[in-house]
Amino acid sequence: MYLTMNRFKVVKAEAAAFEELWKTRDSHLGDVPGFVSFALMKGPEAEDHVLYASHTIWADEASFTAWTKSEAFRAAHGGAKSSGHMYLAPPDLEIFEAVQVLTA
Amino acid sequence: MYLTMNRFKVVKAEAAAFEELWKTRDSHLGDVPGFVSFALMKGPEAEDHVLYASHTIWADEASFTAWTKSEAFRAAHGGAKSSGHMYLAPPDLEIFEAVQVLTA
Repeated sequence: MYLTMNRFKVVKAEAAAFEELWKTRDSHLGDVPGFVSFALMKGPEAEDHVLYASHTIWADEASFTAWTKSEAFRAAHGGAKSSGHMYLAPPDLEIFEAVQVLTA
Repeated sequence: MYLTMNRFKVVKAEAAAFEELWKTRDSHLGDVPGFVSFALMKGPEAEDHVLYASHTIWADEASFTAWTKSEAFRAAHGGAKSSGHMYLAPPDLEIFEAVQVLTA
């Protein structure tokens, strides 16, 4: 399991617009080879922002790398610049590799 | 989907021991009502630590809350104090609620 997590510090007044942006955009992820699942998660509220995290799970690192070089990636990120005012800071990308997995 | 994520800054020299600790302990999670899945994830390395994150997914918030008050929780965390020297800082718990989910 290969997890790419992007953490967004979203200005409070923009939280609803931020969620709407994700819900209405076409991520083009469904057809990408090696894509497993995506979740946009709402986290804790701080005084001046709300923490959101996008969690994308890939079959392996090669699938993620291939996606970042694809047309689907460019299409999904075409609007990124216009949403800059929503964030307190640039998004923070963290990549994780599973060490241990348990399921119910 | 309700995700509880604990972030651990682990001293580099203790990373192997930290992973071993998780792999060998009995989390008692399998039988907990509402438990969906658990993953211990290895993240980026900084100069003085390695970031790990435990991701536990629950059916809902009530399942997580009930677990924190259970005997299974106490049993799983019994050894936490003895591993304090492994961390640069106390673990940082963040709780997320899914806003949007896509699967392949």
